[in-house]
Amino acid sequence: MKRILIIGIGAGDPDHLTLQAVKAMARADVFFVLDKGEVKDDLTRLRRELIEAHAEGAYRVVEAGDPERDRTSAAYGAAVEDWRSRRARICERLIRDELADGQTGAFLVWGDPGLYDSTLAIVEEILARGDVRFDHEVIPGISSVSALAARHRVSLTRVGRPLHVTTGRRLAEGGATADDLVVMLDAHTAFGDLDGDFHIYWGAYVGTPDEILVDGPVAEVAGRIRELRDQARRRKGWIMDTYLLRRRP
Amino acid sequence: MKRILIIGIGAGDPDHLTLQAVKAMARADVFFVLDKGEVKDDLTRLRRELIEAHAEGAYRVVEAGDPERDRTSAAYGAAVEDWRSRRARICERLIRDELADGQTGAFLVWGDPGLYDSTLAIVEEILARGDVRFDHEVIPGISSVSALAARHRVSLTRVGRPLHVTTGRRLAEGGATADDLVVMLDAHTAFGDLDGDFHIYWGAYVGTPDEILVDGPVAEVAGRIRELRDQARRRKGWIMDTYLLRRRP
Ligand SMILES: C[S@@+](CC[C@H](N)C(=O)[O-])C[C@H]1O[C@@H](n2cnc3c(N)ncnc32)[C@H](O)[C@@H]1O
Ligand SMILES: C[S@@+](CC[C@H](N)C(=O)[O-])C[C@H]1O[C@@H](n2cnc3c(N)ncnc32)[C@H](O)[C@@H]1O
Repeated sequence: MKRILIIGIGAGDPDHLTLQAVKAMARADVFFVLDKGEVKDDLTRLRRELIEAHAEGAYRVVEAGDPERDRTSAAYGAAVEDWRSRRARICERLIRDELADGQTGAFLVWGDPGLYDSTLAIVEEILARGDVRFDHEVIPGISSVSALAARHRVSLTRVGRPLHVTTGRRLAEGGATADDLVVMLDAHTAFGDLDGDFHIYWGAYVGTPDEILVDGPVAEVAGRIRELRDQARRRKGWIMDTYLLRRRP
Repeated sequence: MKRILIIGIGAGDPDHLTLQAVKAMARADVFFVLDKGEVKDDLTRLRRELIEAHAEGAYRVVEAGDPERDRTSAAYGAAVEDWRSRRARICERLIRDELADGQTGAFLVWGDPGLYDSTLAIVEEILARGDVRFDHEVIPGISSVSALAARHRVSLTRVGRPLHVTTGRRLAEGGATADDLVVMLDAHTAFGDLDGDFHIYWGAYVGTPDEILVDGPVAEVAGRIRELRDQARRRKGWIMDTYLLRRRP
């Protein structure tokens, strides 16, 4: 039987790696790296550094081009699912051709594999198709959400109250659905159009040497965040940011 | 200046510890352990094992009784806040009397410090009072939520959709507020009274040798979960469980 490990590697700091992830990496014979294109070079580099630091014995790194996603499509869900299916076919081929029976393959997943990541769905899709068979195991990772809260030294939750985790698109469409909200995948700084009085804890490239943190009442800091965000994105070619919104009393 | 580290240790598996947490523990001169009473012996034991494994050089462990919380009070928020203030006074005294200038003290926090944990609020309260001064730093940890999802090999989120994290009390009072819901701090298996057709991914003592996992349509597995939960709680004297609810198509 082949074995696939889906390993959460944390959100940017190589020391986010858990001891469980370190041990899992040491067990892997093959690392599958889906290349995210030039703009994501930094991310691929971190993955490679982790592999060099923690892989043990004989191992191989197998790279595969990541299919382009249709970012112009209005049907976000459908576009993501189509992209996912194409990724699934690539991964299926890799697992079939590049991993021998009895060997262990590893996918290194940014942050926590349970949070807005497609690797688990891809693995489900491959298993459902039934052409290749394997066992799989998931190793949790530090999410960008936990990392953001830690860097701001703030709790995500308040006593007995809910926390909503959502996307920039949803926030732009539906506004704030709770007094404590984490927003991910926001390409358009949706926090700027919020009704109500919120404090924002914002972070970009959290955990990396490029980390930028800003917090304050949205009305006061929104402009500065936009400026920092634009500058950083121009400089690096890509940006990853997340924020916690907390309604002010 | 004194320095306080608030270190997330993960949700039960000693290998949930991150490399960052391991390094932080090696820097600590004093570990503060708030004893949670007999029923939580297992938790205190894990903390001690981690300290023995990862503390370096000369270090001390300082234990302090944890004040009892009024669990009969109807005003949950107020009871928690009162308990928190009494904890803050104990911690303040410990930091003042047991930590010398220039030394580093550590609080080991279950799971992730950002999720339904009072340590950050306690530290804020001590700093606001102003009688002792110190720097502080937060190290994120694997939450029971990430651990649960990993063990079930399921994603917490679906493409482009929100995730609500809430408490058993809220679920019992307000029902399901989203199609994907994580419930913590549920003493009364509130999932049993849900309107609508949900799949539940339930886990108790996740990451520990006592781990129990059940998943299935709520209507089919609710009874079995209740039974397992009662048995386990009787056997061990305490239980910690979390679950993900996902509305079925
Ligand atoms: C496809 S999702 C993957 C999330 C990842 N699985 C996790 O647990 O953090 C990508 C989004 O995560 C957030 N993100 C990931 N890493 C981040 C970082 N280092 N700093 C800030 N935000 C980050 C951003 O909101 C980004 O749009
Ligand atoms: C006071 S909260 C602390 C949460 C912690 N900070 C975290 O990140 O998981 C305690 C609740 O966390 C959940 N929990 C913590 N550890 C758990 C475990 N090992 N298995 C299942 N649930 C757990 C339960 O819902 C429990 O009622």
